[in-house]
Amino acid sequence: MAKDKKLVEAITSMDVDFAQWYTDVVKKAELIDYSSVKGCMVIKPDGYAIWENIQKELDKRFKETGVQNLYMPMFIPESLLEKEKDHVEGFAPEVAWVTHGGLEPLQERLCVRPTSETLFCDFYARDIHSYRDLPKLYNQWCSVVRWEKTTRPFLRSREFLWQEGHTAHATAEEAEERTIQMLNLYADFCEQVLAMPVIRGRKTDKEKFAGAEATYTIEALMHDGKALQSGTSHNFGDGFAKAFDIQFSDKDNKLKYVHQTSWGMTTRLIGAIIMVHGDDNGLVLPPAIAPTQVVIVPVQQQKAGVLDKAYELRDVLSNFRVKVDDSDKSPGWKFSESEMRGIPVRVEIGPRDIENGQAVLVRRDTHEKTTVALSQLDVKVGELLDEIQKHLFEKAKAHRDAHTYTATTFEEFEKTVNEKPGFIKAMWCGCQECEDKIKELTGATSRCMPFKQEQISDKCVCCGKPATKMVYWGRAY
Amino acid sequence: MAKDKKLVEAITSMDVDFAQWYTDVVKKAELIDYSSVKGCMVIKPDGYAIWENIQKELDKRFKETGVQNLYMPMFIPESLLEKEKDHVEGFAPEVAWVTHGGLEPLQERLCVRPTSETLFCDFYARDIHSYRDLPKLYNQWCSVVRWEKTTRPFLRSREFLWQEGHTAHATAEEAEERTIQMLNLYADFCEQVLAMPVIRGRKTDKEKFAGAEATYTIEALMHDGKALQSGTSHNFGDGFAKAFDIQFSDKDNKLKYVHQTSWGMTTRLIGAIIMVHGDDNGLVLPPAIAPTQVVIVPVQQQKAGVLDKAYELRDVLSNFRVKVDDSDKSPGWKFSESEMRGIPVRVEIGPRDIENGQAVLVRRDTHEKTTVALSQLDVKVGELLDEIQKHLFEKAKAHRDAHTYTATTFEEFEKTVNEKPGFIKAMWCGCQECEDKIKELTGATSRCMPFKQEQISDKCVCCGKPATKMVYWGRAY
Repeated sequence: MAKDKKLVEAITSMDVDFAQWYTDVVKKAELIDYSSVKGCMVIKPDGYAIWENIQKELDKRFKETGVQNLYMPMFIPESLLEKEKDHVEGFAPEVAWVTHGGLEPLQERLCVRPTSETLFCDFYARDIHSYRDLPKLYNQWCSVVRWEKTTRPFLRSREFLWQEGHTAHATAEEAEERTIQMLNLYADFCEQVLAMPVIRGRKTDKEKFAGAEATYTIEALMHDGKALQSGTSHNFGDGFAKAFDIQFSDKDNKLKYVHQTSWGMTTRLIGAIIMVHGDDNGLVLPPAIAPTQVVIVPVQQQKAGVLDKAYELRDVLSNFRVKVDDSDKSPGWKFSESEMRGIPVRVEIGPRDIENGQAVLVRRDTHEKTTVALSQLDVKVGELLDEIQKHLFEKAKAHRDAHTYTATTFEEFEKTVNEKPGFIKAMWCGCQECEDKIKELTGATSRCMPFKQEQISDKCVCCGKPATKMVYWGRAY
Repeated sequence: MAKDKKLVEAITSMDVDFAQWYTDVVKKAELIDYSSVKGCMVIKPDGYAIWENIQKELDKRFKETGVQNLYMPMFIPESLLEKEKDHVEGFAPEVAWVTHGGLEPLQERLCVRPTSETLFCDFYARDIHSYRDLPKLYNQWCSVVRWEKTTRPFLRSREFLWQEGHTAHATAEEAEERTIQMLNLYADFCEQVLAMPVIRGRKTDKEKFAGAEATYTIEALMHDGKALQSGTSHNFGDGFAKAFDIQFSDKDNKLKYVHQTSWGMTTRLIGAIIMVHGDDNGLVLPPAIAPTQVVIVPVQQQKAGVLDKAYELRDVLSNFRVKVDDSDKSPGWKFSESEMRGIPVRVEIGPRDIENGQAVLVRRDTHEKTTVALSQLDVKVGELLDEIQKHLFEKAKAHRDAHTYTATTFEEFEKTVNEKPGFIKAMWCGCQECEDKIKELTGATSRCMPFKQEQISDKCVCCGKPATKMVYWGRAY
């Protein structure tokens, strides 16, 4: 593997400097490039192809639950943004404002959507009249803008891609049910497709979405022990409906306000994949979303028959997303590059392999090599991809479990935060003062009140008063 | 059909007022809704599903030619937009300007992309070094903003959805080849998928894209005899490369400028579909992009077994995009609604049909009814959809051919424009003065210099000097 060195040495080891490792990987695996606008990135083909696979999987799951896609304008008039008080307070400080159209100043300035609740509400107010019009189960795939001060590729950028689902229902119960349904859909997607275990729970009032009655979240643990909020689902109750006057005549002929939800996932997930599965050789992609699942690397490709055999194997493997690396680089460089790009399975085929009717399979996750008969290649590659998908999940789950701690006293809590990066499960009295204090003194925030509650102790880890909830805490991206 | 009246009467007849007919159809077929921002529309689920089908088909065709998708930021710093002189002159008067991020004024204002040549160039300048990096064959699906004064849903809106392909090549020949390749891809797509015949040709210098060396276009004729530019492909030569300093070291070790192209198609195509195929009963969708290809309408659905049979037929037809309309509306209303929405085939099934082991098929395009045995339903529906797709194309082509005229004198030209809406083929000397004069006096613009040239006469239809080109002229959207 001596030839690989050049490429591998190009990235910092994750143990030396995790943040630098991350930046190196997104660049060297060619996921992004920086742009001329600070905080906005170019998502390069290899990065975008991951997003396309995420979209395809999520979109299919949404549609199976009756969701329809549509498209809302990207601009929100200032007066519209201001209609719901909590919402505008949450978002106004971080929106980009359009003040001129062509050479003329606008009569009213427009913000570039940071999220589209207000647009959907404006639309619903015109579009919903009767109980027959409900539920509305809408989603859009688009980009949104939030003028963040500190930015990092995928994790926090001024523009990012996402989907935002927005639904309207006749009853509070139905809205709550949909909120939970979408959170569970997100969690299953993360675990089954991204091979990333998540904690499902509810945000505290301090951490909930601007304008929501309740925000539910899935929280994942990155390799460095920091948490990443990976998807949220909000129940708005009838708060927005009252602010925007969205009423319908119900079966009993009475005018009622609708109950709404919204839920979103973003390109941030790509950052999560990198930080959950990556290693010192670069990216490690779960087969389910890897743009290339199998790369075939011909060895001594100048020898007669080698390249032809490689193309033949590509046809044999056409059930998978497969590529032949027939560039004029050395095999060692190609091996190293396929690792950097996180391709789950590498097939190596040279003159001797051909003679023996076999090929070498190399797993990206464990680097394990096996020799397989060419007649078995198709089946073995399929099995290996399944195994890798499963193994990545198990490995990430083991890592998360090994980095999940409990604390019953503030001292223990503080010591754990500082010495053992990870999740801390600890009890909480329910008051924001304790939450604020914990954040101020330790840098850890409440990640969620998990659906699966445990009784760690009976007292708040901060104030010692009777506890009402068990909370996952942690430093977070 | 008496019961249908209510819905059908809701739209103006196309012969009475074509513009009003168009507006009625986009609203009543639930393709769009107006929004709180003038000139920006909500694309509703039925409209967006058409766009999704267009995307799926086009994207597949792009990828087959080696194109990769990526994503560029939506903002362009003013200084970047200004780098290519012709380009900024063409676009600056119609862009939306962001001047504030959150509460702070920006140091440099940013425009919301009206098109992304400058962003791609900025990226290429960093990303292209050697001939090994070429060609770059990139595309993005996104929304763009052009601050138009007069707007119409799909046809001209301040924000619209599109794809923009951007490629960079080592030689001028390769760039020209790609420009033509993509134009032909667009034309084939329009004819095969949208059932819309197009004229392929080159734009005059006056009509070409800001910054392009050559612009190629496909032009379609709408039902009212007005032309619609339906897709364009531009060859930039090395103009942008010089402005942005995009050089590569070639095989001969010399630094050379790349040659670039760009090409785009937009949600405008949905407007084209409406205006080419629609009729006084509403939308008529080509089966290839119809979100619902077959609607099953149960008749006397309250009778035992009818709804069950309808669901059974849905399973039989599961190779198609099929729906059962089991709402509590009357069958007549459902018939009318399926016509308004342009669903290609309607299957009517009632108690007597079930008794006889048959169903009634109704074509949206010709309203023709046939009775088919249930055992044959699957096959017959497939055949019918193929036939409708073919028939729509033939019908549109016949309409276009019947509305394509020639003129050899200015008087004839003027009379034709005023009395016979359609394309006019006429000779042109090649100077812009004649082009300007024709536009000023008749309202007709040069649509394109078609690849298939004909010799209508040997003199310019305007000035009488020797002609160099045959041009398609017409009033246009």
